[in-house]
Amino acid sequence: PVYAATGLDVWTMMNQAAAEVGAVNLGQGFMSFPPKEFITRAAQKALEENTYNQYAPPRGRPALLEQVAARFGSRLGRPIDTASEISIHAGANEALLSVFTAFLTHGQGEEVIVMEPAFDQYAPNIAMAGGTTVYVPLRAQAPADAVMSSDDWKLDMAELEAAVTPKTRIIVLNTPHNPVGKVFTRPELEQIGAVAERHNLLIIADEVYEHLTFAREHLSIASLPRMWDRTVTVGSAGKLLGVTGWRVGWAVGPHALIQPTLAAHTRIVFTTNTPLQEGVAAAMREASANGFYEAQRNEYQRRRDRLMAIFDDVGLPYVVPDGAYYLLVNAAAVRVPEDYPFPAAIADRGPNFRLAYYFVREFGVSGIPPAEFYCEPHRGLAGDYVRFAFCKTDEGLDAAAAALQKLK
Amino acid sequence: PVYAATGLDVWTMMNQAAAEVGAVNLGQGFMSFPPKEFITRAAQKALEENTYNQYAPPRGRPALLEQVAARFGSRLGRPIDTASEISIHAGANEALLSVFTAFLTHGQGEEVIVMEPAFDQYAPNIAMAGGTTVYVPLRAQAPADAVMSSDDWKLDMAELEAAVTPKTRIIVLNTPHNPVGKVFTRPELEQIGAVAERHNLLIIADEVYEHLTFAREHLSIASLPRMWDRTVTVGSAGKLLGVTGWRVGWAVGPHALIQPTLAAHTRIVFTTNTPLQEGVAAAMREASANGFYEAQRNEYQRRRDRLMAIFDDVGLPYVVPDGAYYLLVNAAAVRVPEDYPFPAAIADRGPNFRLAYYFVREFGVSGIPPAEFYCEPHRGLAGDYVRFAFCKTDEGLDAAAAALQKLK
Ligand SMILES: CSCCC(=O)C(=O)O
Ligand SMILES: CSCCC(=O)C(=O)O
Repeated sequence: PVYAATGLDVWTMMNQAAAEVGAVNLGQGFMSFPPKEFITRAAQKALEENTYNQYAPPRGRPALLEQVAARFGSRLGRPIDTASEISIHAGANEALLSVFTAFLTHGQGEEVIVMEPAFDQYAPNIAMAGGTTVYVPLRAQAPADAVMSSDDWKLDMAELEAAVTPKTRIIVLNTPHNPVGKVFTRPELEQIGAVAERHNLLIIADEVYEHLTFAREHLSIASLPRMWDRTVTVGSAGKLLGVTGWRVGWAVGPHALIQPTLAAHTRIVFTTNTPLQEGVAAAMREASANGFYEAQRNEYQRRRDRLMAIFDDVGLPYVVPDGAYYLLVNAAAVRVPEDYPFPAAIADRGPNFRLAYYFVREFGVSGIPPAEFYCEPHRGLAGDYVRFAFCKTDEGLDAAAAALQKLK
Repeated sequence: PVYAATGLDVWTMMNQAAAEVGAVNLGQGFMSFPPKEFITRAAQKALEENTYNQYAPPRGRPALLEQVAARFGSRLGRPIDTASEISIHAGANEALLSVFTAFLTHGQGEEVIVMEPAFDQYAPNIAMAGGTTVYVPLRAQAPADAVMSSDDWKLDMAELEAAVTPKTRIIVLNTPHNPVGKVFTRPELEQIGAVAERHNLLIIADEVYEHLTFAREHLSIASLPRMWDRTVTVGSAGKLLGVTGWRVGWAVGPHALIQPTLAAHTRIVFTTNTPLQEGVAAAMREASANGFYEAQRNEYQRRRDRLMAIFDDVGLPYVVPDGAYYLLVNAAAVRVPEDYPFPAAIADRGPNFRLAYYFVREFGVSGIPPAEFYCEPHRGLAGDYVRFAFCKTDEGLDAAAAALQKLK
């Protein structure tokens, strides 16, 4: 099948490109700093107790179900039933695949709307489940040659509604948004919700960055009137606690939507690893008590501001992210020589990939080409942007600053 | 889709039935004893080092790739290239789903042959990937009312070949076999391999119990002449080290088969959890040096013999397992009253489910109804068997012995 035939994923490709030249890796969104000690200790302790090494119930460990219910319950403004309204997954990615698998059927031509730029796993996951991805771009309403707000990236609601057909089943909404950093406003969410209601669509809310907002607060679409019943909200312990390699995520929603999601999950991976579920549960309990989330948000805001200052210094404009941990930088000022010796795998993927590759080779700082987040016909919308992650150490950001002096 | 609509999985169902009456749980194949300390310590140490908390490469952590290459290389009698011939998965289940996903296409009517009784995840995994499962039963060649050898369960090679159609793509071979305990002999493997060759089929060798054999040695079909190129062999750290909740498995095979398997894996879960991959790698290194595998095999053999003695004592015949950790017991002597108050979910699933349920309620020892391992039209072949697992503590087996006195 087509998704199995695709070449190297962009993450491995750019990690390799970074490693080849010893670049500062601001590409993939993993933390280059260690997690807080209380977090790894929580997992070590679970392994000590010797009761957390066998299969967890497919739905998840009770201690983690409770923590997720508490956190999302307060976001959503309703109590969440741990016995029917949550499932724990082997990462948010597997949660997304489970939801698609639960609600799409092969051979029906069912459609799922995603907003571009869109995280590159959505489309293959939708295809695996039998759906067709329909792309509606967020469009920047401000000139790209100056710093702009992520609020300037707007979804045209008429364009969204025009994309709906009788085959449409699901809208995927990612807020805070990767890679734009946009935090959808209440009126925007209300309008998206109204489209879903008018056409009786499910909403999959990918909210893995819900804990990282720097301007207004994150708002879950499931908390809006009448939205709970048609929404599955996906979250990630890896992102929440800074341990992307632990592969623990979750889906929250009404019983009618979580029951088939759990059935799909049970067939896809059977169950999620037990010791790290227990570790996450204990760490979340502690984090709520010790002020971790506020401190973490402040640290990320400081990192964001530092990375923006670095690009201010070298004169490249960007999109100010109000959430998540990515910065879209407009590198139009960087002239990529026509005859540069690109590997075929890069050259083939178009100018935005060539720009990101040239950037890492020449300036020693690696980012991700957002073209990967667009469907083929829309790749041009990636423009001259390169995405840099700021979930990185101060030393890493300092090294990036030094390397980028060459741009001056 | 149909696999998402299926009711409660048999594991959760029977775990619940056991818990309701405080039964000795010999149902699902998880260890009721703790792993050896060096194993959990290896994972704790990985968490201490603070470098193993972020995304692993989708293929897997280098240290684990090396251990798997060493172990399976010596089984297969060939060096294995860690860069192209292995992928690490979120459990053997996800490895199986990845292989099916890589090689089947929806809407083509492609067929996959499995041998019944067949692990209950195969068929939904095949369906998710777009295939149709074709069932060829292992048939017991000895009377069921006396103890028999697992060698008495035979695959009729003419029946296997007759099941092949122009649509057949894959044969799934599970050895050592769950739940029969059959360890396929070299001549059997050669004959299955010959069928695969004649019809140019892939073989998926589910060898998660390769470390637990009690008579002849386990033989990997991939080690037979000309078989490597058409075989993907699946293994499990959870089974190998007695930590079924860690969710680390692998697939080994030629580059041409592993490359698409890895691509599917990358889209299904992206990557497998990092700290437990490191923990498994370190534990496997240590286990090879400290005699763990031999000791473990001896312990399981002792447990097997104990459980067989328990059923000898109460006069129920069984199939002597030469591998894995399950005992098929013929409970025909137990008379299930017609008017017993079965919950609807049990009653609906037929006499074999009713027998297993009655057994746990009346005798306080829970097993799994092997009917779940047969397709609907073949359910009758489950006969009066109930499957009991012996990956359980001595105390558990003693408690089972005491509870079963009621049978006398
Ligand atoms: C599959 S890559 C995961 C990291 C991430 O979400 C990102 O960098 O966008
Ligand atoms: C999905 S159940 C896993 C345990 C097992 O393999 C078994 O009990 O047969």
